[in-house]
Amino acid sequence: MNPAHPSLGPSAPRVGVIGAGQLARMMQPAAIALGLRLRVLSADPQDCANQVVPDVVSGHPGDMRAVLDFARGCDVVTFEHEHVPADVLEALVATGVPVRPGPGALLYAQDKAEMRERLSGLGLPCPEWTRVTGPADAADLAGKTGWPIVLKATRGGYDGRGVWVVEDADAAARVIAEAAERGVSLLAEAAVPFVRELAAQVARSPHGQAVAYPVVETVQRDGICREVYAPAPAVDEAHALEAQRIALTIAKELDVTGMLAVELFQTADGRLWINELAMRPHNSGHWTIDGALTSQFENHLRAVLDLPLGSPAPHAPLAVMANVIGLDLPDLYPAYLHCLARDPGLKIHNYGKDVKPGRKIGHVTVLGDDFDDCVERARHAAAYLRGEIDE
Amino acid sequence: MNPAHPSLGPSAPRVGVIGAGQLARMMQPAAIALGLRLRVLSADPQDCANQVVPDVVSGHPGDMRAVLDFARGCDVVTFEHEHVPADVLEALVATGVPVRPGPGALLYAQDKAEMRERLSGLGLPCPEWTRVTGPADAADLAGKTGWPIVLKATRGGYDGRGVWVVEDADAAARVIAEAAERGVSLLAEAAVPFVRELAAQVARSPHGQAVAYPVVETVQRDGICREVYAPAPAVDEAHALEAQRIALTIAKELDVTGMLAVELFQTADGRLWINELAMRPHNSGHWTIDGALTSQFENHLRAVLDLPLGSPAPHAPLAVMANVIGLDLPDLYPAYLHCLARDPGLKIHNYGKDVKPGRKIGHVTVLGDDFDDCVERARHAAAYLRGEIDE
Repeated sequence: MNPAHPSLGPSAPRVGVIGAGQLARMMQPAAIALGLRLRVLSADPQDCANQVVPDVVSGHPGDMRAVLDFARGCDVVTFEHEHVPADVLEALVATGVPVRPGPGALLYAQDKAEMRERLSGLGLPCPEWTRVTGPADAADLAGKTGWPIVLKATRGGYDGRGVWVVEDADAAARVIAEAAERGVSLLAEAAVPFVRELAAQVARSPHGQAVAYPVVETVQRDGICREVYAPAPAVDEAHALEAQRIALTIAKELDVTGMLAVELFQTADGRLWINELAMRPHNSGHWTIDGALTSQFENHLRAVLDLPLGSPAPHAPLAVMANVIGLDLPDLYPAYLHCLARDPGLKIHNYGKDVKPGRKIGHVTVLGDDFDDCVERARHAAAYLRGEIDE
Repeated sequence: MNPAHPSLGPSAPRVGVIGAGQLARMMQPAAIALGLRLRVLSADPQDCANQVVPDVVSGHPGDMRAVLDFARGCDVVTFEHEHVPADVLEALVATGVPVRPGPGALLYAQDKAEMRERLSGLGLPCPEWTRVTGPADAADLAGKTGWPIVLKATRGGYDGRGVWVVEDADAAARVIAEAAERGVSLLAEAAVPFVRELAAQVARSPHGQAVAYPVVETVQRDGICREVYAPAPAVDEAHALEAQRIALTIAKELDVTGMLAVELFQTADGRLWINELAMRPHNSGHWTIDGALTSQFENHLRAVLDLPLGSPAPHAPLAVMANVIGLDLPDLYPAYLHCLARDPGLKIHNYGKDVKPGRKIGHVTVLGDDFDDCVERARHAAAYLRGEIDE
């Protein structure tokens, strides 16, 4: 029982979320509906989930004592990001509280080399790759795949950080030397000549039930997701099924619990290549809040609680999500009048974050059946809300 | 600026909600998406909105000092119930904070005699009625309409409380005498021989924009709403439009801001009769959370903030909502396993309230296109969650 909230039913579980950014924030509406208790671990008083969740514990995810204090009284602990050190995860598991996804699965979302090794071993389609111990490894790989190649920090990167596309051996050597100086481990992989990026999301529960969301197309700019089209336009059924099969296989073989997102490259021949994994709600699934019967946030909570999963059926033939990326305007609200009047079907999600250039501060979703119309509406609203256009 | 949440944008408004029950609770997901700040006035620490809204001010809606303290720093004050005394409302308005709906409109949701007088004056279809000052008024009305008639407390009733159907003059005299003893004012009205009950909901903003939701059928038992069918089955277009026209007329003529629900009786000839008004989100619109592009809670917030209103378009041909009414089970959660496994499309809303027999503790919504199927699914889940059935 939570003494602060004695009226909650005695069996309503408390879900602890490590991290208090927009992903934790967007879990709260799903928790409210199901009558669950959410507790967030917040490293910064300005974390945007703190505005909407009464039960906030302050602490850094690397601070073992803070994490263990936070977990006391939680019925399950889950994550909105992967940045939790292995020793903290192990100590958390040792307390007996269910940790979902568990450290054994989370490793493959934390460490890209471990992920490549494991997924290659499962026969899943990864670009040619190698661990990098020195410039020779990069040159060897390029000898097989040609330049450019991609160098990646095995840990800690996100939104395009920790990724370098290098055109030749000199450029590779410079990145490798800098990384070595900072103690950053690298891998090198073929630069896949993709024509577009897709994402496949599944939810999986500890007892092994899984559901697959429609496969979406994601559009990145400067390494940051800008738009998502659900379902991916003109994807043929075989490739959509293949993407879902890849995600379901990974979820099962890696024993993922909760949401799993598999980012994929698609090449001109239609083939799919695994890019990255995320074991949590993911930007490619924000459209599900307004566009699907069960949002990714609800299914994440249901999965980590080992509740039966909800239908991922979409509400409309098409959903288009556009991220609002911070630019000049200090906040989104003054633009509501124009955006909401222009489009009564627009769904605005404002994360309540301080605006910084390049920061994800919100997103918009539009449902419909005409691709050009939906993209124009979502793109216009996102541009207007960030202050890129003024009409 | 809210000092506790410095990262909220400087212009994100704070909406104060008088009341902290399930209606305030269900405003929170809409507020989270739009990045608004919600503050609730809670008369009881166990109020279920307190579990999910960080900004709770304790106080009774009749306590003028508490209400004024609560309103300080709010950009607008609205309501989840009508039980605020006139002097408190007037003092609130005098502070300069926008109060929406305003006292001039709210009066007609607070006082059924004022409502009957006003709506009759507008030529809107009300049952024959009269204020009751003594038994002769009831007998006079029955002389015109025949027995039974309905006696109603002009103020304070809800969920069937404060309503008496009386079969003869003696029964009427008893109710009238008891009411007089308790200082309760009554009105008498014809018992409309209705074949079903409908509800028409509209949102209206201060600048006069209004949107109308599909007209629904509501099913009451013991004076408490049990099920809602959206849209009302087999309602012909003329009657649906008439119901929406009635609601839009009332919203405009009474200067309602926010959501307005008009409860209607439909008689065998198809005619509509106004039963009651509610100027807030209403049980008849809970289906809109999962079933419409813009929920009644979001449109209520948008309306009281004078933002453009959102599309009320439904996601599916049919939505069926069933209330979970407290019975034997002390809480809902243990039944989730069965209900969610049986129906992956089921949407559960658990208000986190202590279970008491007859109390609304949650609701479920099902979307689909087959009436019998949707009703069976919603009815089964509601019955299972309350403990009425066990398979």
